[in-house]
Parts: sequence; structure tokens; C-alpha cells
Amino acid sequence: MSTTGITAPAGFTAAALTAGIKPSGNPDMALVVNTGPEFHAAAVFTRNRVVASPVKLSRQAIADGQVKAVLYNAGNANACNGRQGDLDAAELQHQVAELLDLSPSDVGICSTGLIGELLPMGKLRAGIDKLATDLGDNGGVAAEAIMTTDLVKKEILVQGNGWSLGGMGKGVGMMSPSLATMLVCFTTDASATPEMLDTALRAATRVTFDTLDIDGSTSTNDTVFLLASGASGVSPTQEELNAAVLAASQELTSKLQADAEGVTKRVAVTVEGTSTDIQALDAARTLARDSLFKCAMFGSDPNWGRVLAAVGVADADMDPEHISVYFNGQPVCVDTTGTPGAREVDLSGADIDVLVHLGIDGPGRATVRTTDLSHDYVEINSAYSS
Amino acid sequence: MSTTGITAPAGFTAAALTAGIKPSGNPDMALVVNTGPEFHAAAVFTRNRVVASPVKLSRQAIADGQVKAVLYNAGNANACNGRQGDLDAAELQHQVAELLDLSPSDVGICSTGLIGELLPMGKLRAGIDKLATDLGDNGGVAAEAIMTTDLVKKEILVQGNGWSLGGMGKGVGMMSPSLATMLVCFTTDASATPEMLDTALRAATRVTFDTLDIDGSTSTNDTVFLLASGASGVSPTQEELNAAVLAASQELTSKLQADAEGVTKRVAVTVEGTSTDIQALDAARTLARDSLFKCAMFGSDPNWGRVLAAVGVADADMDPEHISVYFNGQPVCVDTTGTPGAREVDLSGADIDVLVHLGIDGPGRATVRTTDLSHDYVEINSAYSS
Repeated sequence: MSTTGITAPAGFTAAALTAGIKPSGNPDMALVVNTGPEFHAAAVFTRNRVVASPVKLSRQAIADGQVKAVLYNAGNANACNGRQGDLDAAELQHQVAELLDLSPSDVGICSTGLIGELLPMGKLRAGIDKLATDLGDNGGVAAEAIMTTDLVKKEILVQGNGWSLGGMGKGVGMMSPSLATMLVCFTTDASATPEMLDTALRAATRVTFDTLDIDGSTSTNDTVFLLASGASGVSPTQEELNAAVLAASQELTSKLQADAEGVTKRVAVTVEGTSTDIQALDAARTLARDSLFKCAMFGSDPNWGRVLAAVGVADADMDPEHISVYFNGQPVCVDTTGTPGAREVDLSGADIDVLVHLGIDGPGRATVRTTDLSHDYVEINSAYSS
Repeated sequence: MSTTGITAPAGFTAAALTAGIKPSGNPDMALVVNTGPEFHAAAVFTRNRVVASPVKLSRQAIADGQVKAVLYNAGNANACNGRQGDLDAAELQHQVAELLDLSPSDVGICSTGLIGELLPMGKLRAGIDKLATDLGDNGGVAAEAIMTTDLVKKEILVQGNGWSLGGMGKGVGMMSPSLATMLVCFTTDASATPEMLDTALRAATRVTFDTLDIDGSTSTNDTVFLLASGASGVSPTQEELNAAVLAASQELTSKLQADAEGVTKRVAVTVEGTSTDIQALDAARTLARDSLFKCAMFGSDPNWGRVLAAVGVADADMDPEHISVYFNGQPVCVDTTGTPGAREVDLSGADIDVLVHLGIDGPGRATVRTTDLSHDYVEINSAYSS
């Protein structure tokens, strides 16, 4: 049994291989199968209104709270391919179902890669045939197979009391680049109802994946699955389940942030001193998406004026004359005025912590994690498809 | 009399000099004076809630529709400097008023540069003394003195029937970078009421400066003044005035776009096929601010999938299955599906035209002008204050 990842919990097998979708020749297809005895599941998807064909199918598959297998491919998003894209995704779903003796509606599909290219169906058909015969303790290769511009594979394992939760993820941004979808698969041998899984997953994603904002772009393909086999025979409480899914999501979010496209700085933006958490989140997201702020972070430049300019347009209650900013715990701006020594704060490390107080005596608070805007980000994203 | 710029219309003088605020030693202060016989004026300001001290004063000055002089400095924004910043701006306003024998409330103040540094008041005081004695036909030097990271000075002249409208502007983005405020001054020798001027200015800025979006950031200092001397003795109709201010704003917007920070591509984004102009504007702005789209433009990469992913999150009515995209007039995506040859569209030129139809049979339409996201943009903005 694996020591981490999706095949570490009991009741799961996986297979992965190189089908030839990625030009690199690296593994690019994976299949994850829940061997039971239970097949409960939950999932969350991108909020984009333009969604890929596999997202449409996976939404239908999760509707009854049961998913027994998920097929992954990288190198092609199967998004914006019209009716042919829908037909192709459905054919893959049916092929997996037939080979594993499942109902098509118990098979989820996740794709990531370039938008607007038809899937090389010959390669995928042959890949599925082989995947179905290779199922085993292969979570590690599956985690490699879903990578696109990711530099490292991302796996986690959280131990419960007599049960465990494993996971794999890919993506260089959340709700993020069209070419860098975030895909996550969690597996657990805990016994839990679909409702419990859904509750735990939504609570966790709200404060983890949903608040990782690399570049403000929202993918057409983002999907997070949580599959539960019940194979441990242990039924955790809702609270125990919530805690494990949250811990797993936090760890995977950190791994995604650390491997974001062109990242040289990991930046945590916290906003407080406003009326509601939603307002704080809007302000934090506005700052996390501000190109000038992100360039300053790349330059290790404590240019707090850009923080003020950015949050000043946020949809949040604030007192414009009493905003404070802290870089790595040091006050650089108090009451909308710079402090002595503010320009000398050392931001040369890889982790930067930014705290903004909007000057209102309210309970609103939120944290968004982002990265800097670097030359490598521009290079990667101006050269990807050409 | 100048052949272009703010001292081309009758009834205006200007002076400019190097006060030593900019480290470069280039001109950094300017004074524009309306010599009458009329002193009507209008102005628009940044929508940011965090505003610089000079913006607060200029808002008060314009309240009665009369402004006789505007003082400019570059190299220091006098923003986020607390009470001392307000006091400094007021002192400058009073000094100008005293030397020119005006009421302080008839003097506007505009600053641009780094946020959060106190003004070097000694240099500014000496500068004003000299500016007041140097007034003349110096619009060209004034246009230089307001530059920050601008590479070229920006002046325009629009001819009316017996009157004219001149202007100068600076800024590498509209409603834009905290370190690259957009400042514009229009002068006209037409005779027009403050209400006529205000109507003309707001109508023009709505479709010009307000739809130039370089990086989505909103400055603390953006200010556009329109000063009218009546010296021509001609009273244009509202329509004639509107047309001249619109033409002047369009020309200056083009100059600002062409000189934006790190620009290698000038990109016009038009959205139609949605319910209202406001929705179309939201979608156009969402696309114009999308880092992945802007990186693709930098790479001359017709990666239309990023256009779909970006507009899919806009606050606009759309039919997600029937979106079309045109690059330079060529259809690259029809009904949310790529066209044959879409990847071969040539985007190697400096001007790129993007048209997005959101698939709804509605009258909404808007154009936003932006630029690409280049290595130079990152370089300029990671190194500015350090």
C-alpha cells in the first residue's frame, strides 16, 4: 500500500500511462477506481460558465452521490470543442464503464491542457484499454500523469483514527489558468454518507482552494473529487471528517501555491477591519490580483502605496483615512500614512505575509494566497500553445 | 503661440522647470494659468476611495465651476501622507494663489509619482516662485514636466470653428498604476459655461480614458481638467464642444495606450451580443485584465481558449454554448468551438483587434483598449521604487 496519495487508503486502485497526448512523452492518462464496499462521493467544480465537456459529464455523475471511478487525462482540456467534445467525453465514460462493469453515470471524467483542440481519441481509447488491466497500487504515477506545467507531483495523506484520507492534485493556480486547470482527487477509506462528504468538501474548499488565486483567471475544467470506499469499516463523525478534508486541502493548496507558474514568492494576503468576511475576501482578492502589487513582490519591494491603491477600489467597507498595512508583521502604513523605515522592510525571503486593516471596527476577515508576477510567468504563458 | 498643446488656444500661459523632485534631473513642475476673460472649468477624478491630498483640494476647487490655475508636479504623488500631506498641498495652493493674486479655491493641484513619500517642500516652494515669473508659451515643457515612466510627451490640438482645444497628458495606464497616475489638462479658448464643459468632459471620458485599461489598477491621483478662457469670443454649441472634447480625448487616449508601460502590442477588445452596454463593458474589461490573455498577446499567440475562459466569468448575459471570437477580423471560434486554421492567425503586428460575441441577441456593446503583458512591464514595475 502506498505511503501517501490516492492509493494509500484502503479500497482504491489506480493506473497511469503515457498515451501520447502530451508532446513531452510523460505520463498523461490515469484511472482511479473505488473498489468499495461503499462508493459515496462528493465533488466541486469551476464557477466558470464556459465549462469543458468532462465537467458537464462529471456534474451529472456526482448528482446521485455515487462515483466508482474517475478517468484523468492531461495535455488536452476537451473544452470549447462543441458537440464533438461532448460526444468524445461520453464515449470515454462509456468505455471505462464497460471495461469495469459499471454504469456510465458512476464514472467521472477530468481533463486538463489546451482549450479548443479535439481529443486524440485513438490514443485515449487504447489508453483506457490498458489502464483497466493495470489497476493497482499506482497512486504516485497517477499524480504524475495529471501534471501539465506543474514541476513536481503533489500527493498528500492525512491519518484519521483507524482510517485515512489520501489525495493528489495538479494546477498552477486555482479557479485559474485556462491552460492550468486545478484537478484534485481525494480518496478515503472512511465510511461516510454523500451528504457528509459534500459538507466536508465544501467547507474545506471555501477556505483553501477557493482562496488560492494565482492570476485571477478561472479555468473551464477545475474539479475536486472526494471518493469514500468505507473499506476501513470506521465511520468518523462529521467533525472528524471535516478536519481531515480541511487538513488535506490545506496541504495540497500549499503544494499548488509553491509550484505555481513562475513563482518566486509565496504571498499570503489577509484583510481585516471591515464589515463581513465576504467584503474582506473581496479586498484580499483585489489585492492578490493586482499586477503592480505582484510585480513589487517579485522585486522584494515594500511598496505599500500599491497596497493602498489596490484595496481602495475593493467592494468592502473601509475608512480611507485609517488603513494600516503590515509586511511580515512589521507596520509599514498606519492610518493611511507611511511609517518611518517602511521602505527598508526586508522582503527578500520566499514567503511574504501581508496584513491589511481597512480601518473599520468590524468582524470581517479573510486570507487569500497568491504568488508574485515574474518574468517566468510571462515567459511560460506567452509561449505555451505556440 | 504653440502649434499644439495647452498654450495653443488663446488665453493660456504655462511654465515648467526642474525642481529636483525626480532623481533624473528632468523637468518635474509645471504651472498652467488661464488668463481669461472667462475662467470656467470642469474636472473628473479617480474613482479610488484612497485619494491623494491634491485630489481632495482639486475637488473642492472645481466645485464652483471656476479654476484659474493648475499646479503640477511629477516624481511624488503626495498620496497616503496623512495630515502633513493635506497641509503641504494646501500650502502649495496658497503660494500659487498669492503670487498670481487669486483665491486659493481657484487653484487646482495635481501630483504624480511615488505614493507615501512626503513632498520635498523646499524644492516645491522655490519652484513655484520661479514658475510664477516664467509664464508664457511653454506648453511643450509643461507636457514634459508631468511625465513619470512615460517615454514621450503627449500633446494634442483640436480645431473648432474660430476656436481650438489643446491638451497634454501623462500616464502609462488609465485609472491605473499607483505610480503612473493619469493626469490630463485640456485648455480651450471657447466660451462655454461650466455645465457645458462638465457635460462634454464626462461624455468624452466615459468612452475614452475610462475604457483604457492597462493593468486594472486604479490610481490615487487621476485627474482630468478642462479649462476654458473664452478668449476666442466664440461660443460653440454643446454638440460642437462635445465633438472637440471627444476628439481630443480619443487622440490622447491613443497616445497613452501607445506609451503604456512595457507595451509591445496595442489591443482593442470589443464585446457585443449581450444585453446592455454595461454588461459588454464588464466583459471587455474582464478580458482586458486577464493576465493569461495579455501574455498570449505578448507572444502573438492566437490562443482563443483564454478568451473564452476569461469572458466566462464576466458579469454579463451570455450563451456559453454560442460564443464567437474574432482576431483581427478572422473568426477563430464560432459557437464556442474553434475554427479550422484558428491557430495560424497572424498576430505578429503591433495592433490586435479582438471581437467577442457572447451569443445573446441583445444591443450591448463596448470597447476597451489595453496592452499586452510583457517582460518589460514586469521589469519596470518590480524595480520602480527600489
